[in-house]
Amino acid sequence: MNPRQIIEKKRDGGILTAEEIEYFVQAYTSSEIADYQAAALLMAICLRGMITHELMALTRAMRDSGDILDLSSIPGKKIDKHSTGGVGDKTSLVVAPIAAACGVTVPKITGRALGHTGGTLDKLQSIPGFDPKPTTDRILSLLSQHGAVLMGQSETLVPADRRLYALRDATATVESIALITSSILSKKFAENIDGLVLDVKTGSGALMPSKKLSMQLGRSIAGVCRKMKVGVVVLITDMEQPLGRAVGNALEVKECIDFLNGTAPEDLKTLALALAAEMIRLDGRVKTQREAERMASEAVSTGKARQRFLDIIAGQGGDIQTIENPDLLPKAKNVMAVEAKRSGVVVRADAKLLGRAANALGAGRLRTDDRIDPAVGLYLHKKTGERVERGETLCDVHWNDAIRLLDAIPLVEQAFEIGSRAGRRRPLIHAVLRG
Amino acid sequence: MNPRQIIEKKRDGGILTAEEIEYFVQAYTSSEIADYQAAALLMAICLRGMITHELMALTRAMRDSGDILDLSSIPGKKIDKHSTGGVGDKTSLVVAPIAAACGVTVPKITGRALGHTGGTLDKLQSIPGFDPKPTTDRILSLLSQHGAVLMGQSETLVPADRRLYALRDATATVESIALITSSILSKKFAENIDGLVLDVKTGSGALMPSKKLSMQLGRSIAGVCRKMKVGVVVLITDMEQPLGRAVGNALEVKECIDFLNGTAPEDLKTLALALAAEMIRLDGRVKTQREAERMASEAVSTGKARQRFLDIIAGQGGDIQTIENPDLLPKAKNVMAVEAKRSGVVVRADAKLLGRAANALGAGRLRTDDRIDPAVGLYLHKKTGERVERGETLCDVHWNDAIRLLDAIPLVEQAFEIGSRAGRRRPLIHAVLRG
Repeated sequence: MNPRQIIEKKRDGGILTAEEIEYFVQAYTSSEIADYQAAALLMAICLRGMITHELMALTRAMRDSGDILDLSSIPGKKIDKHSTGGVGDKTSLVVAPIAAACGVTVPKITGRALGHTGGTLDKLQSIPGFDPKPTTDRILSLLSQHGAVLMGQSETLVPADRRLYALRDATATVESIALITSSILSKKFAENIDGLVLDVKTGSGALMPSKKLSMQLGRSIAGVCRKMKVGVVVLITDMEQPLGRAVGNALEVKECIDFLNGTAPEDLKTLALALAAEMIRLDGRVKTQREAERMASEAVSTGKARQRFLDIIAGQGGDIQTIENPDLLPKAKNVMAVEAKRSGVVVRADAKLLGRAANALGAGRLRTDDRIDPAVGLYLHKKTGERVERGETLCDVHWNDAIRLLDAIPLVEQAFEIGSRAGRRRPLIHAVLRG
Repeated sequence: MNPRQIIEKKRDGGILTAEEIEYFVQAYTSSEIADYQAAALLMAICLRGMITHELMALTRAMRDSGDILDLSSIPGKKIDKHSTGGVGDKTSLVVAPIAAACGVTVPKITGRALGHTGGTLDKLQSIPGFDPKPTTDRILSLLSQHGAVLMGQSETLVPADRRLYALRDATATVESIALITSSILSKKFAENIDGLVLDVKTGSGALMPSKKLSMQLGRSIAGVCRKMKVGVVVLITDMEQPLGRAVGNALEVKECIDFLNGTAPEDLKTLALALAAEMIRLDGRVKTQREAERMASEAVSTGKARQRFLDIIAGQGGDIQTIENPDLLPKAKNVMAVEAKRSGVVVRADAKLLGRAANALGAGRLRTDDRIDPAVGLYLHKKTGERVERGETLCDVHWNDAIRLLDAIPLVEQAFEIGSRAGRRRPLIHAVLRG
């Protein structure tokens, strides 16, 4: 097969065959096809798109570029949850233990922070001792003991995605529905899951800010899952402002512990329970959404989810004293309050700017090799729609480095807007697509 | 500046600034920007296009990547002629001496064969001793003595185009109106010309087979020339069948000599005189097309153009005995006639297939480092619209290598179609666009 002819076909809006896609992915992974040819194809895919058949072939070819996690020794369905990434989006930390407490098996691969968005793995690593990369044997024993494992992506899982992602990042081809679909699903299918609950973020802090594109991505992923006989539910959820009140690794872990102890910001609670309920339904143990939501809610109120969280963290070597007493989590040396310059109603607490501010403090990465400071971050005392008096604290900035603070403050100030009256309220869950 | 942001802008259909384009071309030429980033931008340009302002900036940036030929010591306007390439397209060989014989200064950079199309430089090199790369001093003295020089592109002229062309070839981004425009014009502007007559081929043997795309390319080039204050005339001419009857290097040189001696296939004569007349008009010596055509025609009938051809070839070291007696040109060892299998009218003599057949014999190149056999090629006894009896020769195949012959014959047979009556006649000149 000729790589140039394959590029040409996609350039002209043609539909690639499964053989052409497999050849391209294999030959690229084995360095037979050059980066520049792959870059041209990625841009052509970005602008011409792919139909479901092409996406299936691309997802399969990428999945087959590396190892596949064999979970056949664990009985029952395996259900994963994935988010396209946002600011303050810590739901995975609580959704996995809630679902596991309700009997669902959750082999969760979690990601690293990149750009202005946080990563679940970085949040978990603010717990001293936590092992993000258990061996396959350990994964199997953790799953059968606790029903959930929270792990980073191994080097041997979908190597094609790692190479393609780096290339997409350098060639402005990250924002392609087709390429995002195959990137997410190749990793999920390499875990051999039976069901997937996908949280597609929409709004300023999302990978795809527009609702239209978020819906397209949701439909694209649901379409491939359906054809691959993997159960799927897609929630399109709001990321115009951060989720919950904490942004930053240890601060978010603390908010999750508070949640499992019974106190949580309303939006975090609503979304986490909705996601967990969808996982319970996909698993097939209950018939209605109402029943599933009650199960999830009870897992929290009875303390079962909290216990399961302790088990999972302890199972992966994490120091559970920090969970029992969150004051032992990494703490920033300084806290600075950003105050309201006028009285009124918060009409904007921009997720992207607040994400960039947390990043500037050291909570995230601009490059893949940047080191993260687990202690720094933001705590939003006021969110959109809330009333504030002049001089009241809008947001606490937890900081360690004064130079970084100087970069962060203007971003925080810019992120908040105070008006005379509340604007139109955005829903937390914009849409639910079921596979 | 950030290459990723530039790629992103074009990906989303934005208009690049002159600064962005200059930065990208300079940084790519100096290897600061990687091939894969350039490939992504090329594909985005391919699919999103460029407006005239972007094309001007791209053309200028490419031109400025290397040396510029200083022709200011030669008085008067410098007029070049360029063809987008075809099969049997030998007009440059006769147009340059005709225009020069009429007082026009013609600093003509000629190209090599690539793909199924021939190259003027390869044709000229079938004349023993011909020097395709005179020094700059020699170019100046040849221009002032004979009014014309036929030269290959030097290594230092538009190096950005050489690099980008190789990348376009590997990434299926050759067929882009924007990239073809800047590739052609950067080389023409590096010669510092005042006027350009462009022959855009259309039909099966052309780079752009469709008339619609050929017209778009013509308009794109005319638009940039107009803004750059370079006089321009674009002829959209037919390449559904080869031009003239000879295809192959020495065979085409012989056909040109015949033309200058007064005998030529009608289509070659019509097109060559039209092109030469446009050059004469651009030079400004005559007012009407009719006058210019008469001048061109007289240059041939009086033998002045033939003498000028001898002067140019001799000036560049070519053995003019081969021009005086074309039997001395390289000759193939064997000639095989392909005969008509039925009586009727030739309704197709497909330029692309005949070009590929000539290539298969050794007349062209598939890769840039392939060696050319100057002697081999085709001579069409019948062209579209001509009557043929069963058993009559359609085409002579001049060959040296029997294995290559076996590849060529089926292509020749496939190229010819004989019907009961003549089809609709395609015009030789489809359109003329004046700058």
